[in-house]
Amino acid sequence: MAVTLDQVAEAAGVSKSTASRVLSGSSRVSAQTKRAVQSAAERLGYRPNRIASGLRTRRSNLVGLVITNLVNASFHRITEVLQQRLDERGYQVLLCVTDSDPARERRYLDMLLDHRVDGLIIVGTGDNTATVRQVSAAGIPVVNLMRSPDSAPGDSVMAADRDGAELAVRHLLDLGHRSVAFIGGPAGVDSGRDRYAGFAAALATVGLEPDPALCARGPFTVPFGAEAAMRLMGADNPPTALYSANHEATFGVLGALVQLGVRVPEQLSLVCHEEAPWFPYWHPPITVVDNGARDLGELAAEQLLRRIDSRPDNGDPGEESVGRLIRVGSRLVVRDSTAAPRRPE
Amino acid sequence: MAVTLDQVAEAAGVSKSTASRVLSGSSRVSAQTKRAVQSAAERLGYRPNRIASGLRTRRSNLVGLVITNLVNASFHRITEVLQQRLDERGYQVLLCVTDSDPARERRYLDMLLDHRVDGLIIVGTGDNTATVRQVSAAGIPVVNLMRSPDSAPGDSVMAADRDGAELAVRHLLDLGHRSVAFIGGPAGVDSGRDRYAGFAAALATVGLEPDPALCARGPFTVPFGAEAAMRLMGADNPPTALYSANHEATFGVLGALVQLGVRVPEQLSLVCHEEAPWFPYWHPPITVVDNGARDLGELAAEQLLRRIDSRPDNGDPGEESVGRLIRVGSRLVVRDSTAAPRRPE
Repeated sequence: MAVTLDQVAEAAGVSKSTASRVLSGSSRVSAQTKRAVQSAAERLGYRPNRIASGLRTRRSNLVGLVITNLVNASFHRITEVLQQRLDERGYQVLLCVTDSDPARERRYLDMLLDHRVDGLIIVGTGDNTATVRQVSAAGIPVVNLMRSPDSAPGDSVMAADRDGAELAVRHLLDLGHRSVAFIGGPAGVDSGRDRYAGFAAALATVGLEPDPALCARGPFTVPFGAEAAMRLMGADNPPTALYSANHEATFGVLGALVQLGVRVPEQLSLVCHEEAPWFPYWHPPITVVDNGARDLGELAAEQLLRRIDSRPDNGDPGEESVGRLIRVGSRLVVRDSTAAPRRPE
Repeated sequence: MAVTLDQVAEAAGVSKSTASRVLSGSSRVSAQTKRAVQSAAERLGYRPNRIASGLRTRRSNLVGLVITNLVNASFHRITEVLQQRLDERGYQVLLCVTDSDPARERRYLDMLLDHRVDGLIIVGTGDNTATVRQVSAAGIPVVNLMRSPDSAPGDSVMAADRDGAELAVRHLLDLGHRSVAFIGGPAGVDSGRDRYAGFAAALATVGLEPDPALCARGPFTVPFGAEAAMRLMGADNPPTALYSANHEATFGVLGALVQLGVRVPEQLSLVCHEEAPWFPYWHPPITVVDNGARDLGELAAEQLLRRIDSRPDNGDPGEESVGRLIRVGSRLVVRDSTAAPRRPE
């Protein structure tokens, strides 16, 4: 026979509603009362019926995570961190992988509304801001992650992609490179646009402009990176440095460099954007722009939890507060793949 | 004003309970009735309250996925596939990453019971089979994925790790190699144990036994692979072939080989277990044992959905059926990293 909330409340010497507030994770209870209820629940082996309590409290304890894919190292790291942080506070992640498909994203958003999620974290395609607005209008806090479409409701937690790109390229320029190639993502995606802008801004500090012959912008795929590197390094006058700003393409770039026998950093200095667990162990260990994937996950979780906590208990949408933009700074991690060019030009 | 189920039923000309059955995804309704209800729901803009319907139907439309991590390529691929397949059938994934911590796993299992999940897919640590039994005893179908602890309840969908290892090592032996090294996972994990067994079985077919000096078994980390490869290749009498059976370690192995200047396949033939998106584009393209991550995800989803569909509607645990073991065959994908040894020994 299942233990009831009444029995827990009686054992703890509190009212049923107080016991319910403690067990649903409300913070508006004294620490002493909290301990009494929790220890009574544990002693009696009480397991809440979350479906029934969800109907009563209008809280599902579910958070929707809408994300592009799990193959990208930043995305899978962020997903792990978010899930852990939210779980620590009693919220579970409903995982929704869009593969950048706006139609799938749209269906997920409708479904998350049906499940009455308590919050939404979205790496959005940018094509469904109207639907995201419906979510927000239903009183569900929204955090835009990594991508923040114009007019998106809610808070945004973003990587400092432009700054990171500038750090990478200024490092190469400071070493004496003047022929710096760029391999990046498409211009239609925040990271693709911002990293290219940082690349151009760094070049401008030494009076240079991006040379179209040294720039390749394309999809987040391995073959794109391999082909771009083959083309750039096979040219009559190959660059002495490469800033690889497209994480998926980077794996194709590395394979192409091994295939062409390009020695790093002797013949080519290389900086990659986004860390991978084995870059420090590569030969040579790779200089990277660390975009702070772990911090992005932590901050998105914290910001969402803050908004959930400050929502009125009756489930009505609170007064609309202005969305906040939080940017996580990028860090340049200098390893051995970057050095001065052999003959300064 | 929200559209009610009554309005949908009236518009479709069916009873409320029939409309409810269609919209909760029951298969026991004629195709014609289904279409009528679905089109009425769509026309009217009906959105079900999943929490209320969950209490009524005892279905949450949630499936728990308990998995080790999302960094491993097989794990993140499987998670993507599972999520897509389950979503197509109206089920959402509650993601639970354990990091191989039995205490976290235990908490997740309790939490998933609280959320009244309709099914559980678990890559288990093996330390919580008693709790998994409780889940199963509550009438919730369980699928063990990649790891199947003794006495685990439910079905199991497993990779053919032992067979895959045999394929890899027999390929090396057929090319003429007799000095074959092994870098693998710990013996306490199914994949670590089974791949070593396949390695030993293949050697036995030519009258050899594993040479302890050529075997490294350790954690699923990049540094372990780097150190193991440095030690093996730095020995007085290095092997002519290497079967890298530990996916995470493989990235350390590749870095070490570049660092040592080992030419593949001229000086060392290399087979890696588990595919990565960039292995076909590596230099040289890497021969792999494809463990069928996509099929593992598809089959785990299908098997779970089959069990959910055959569960009686009243939510009682059905008569206990014997768990089924499904094994997904491994495939050897021969690329350019394997060749005959230069001087056959």
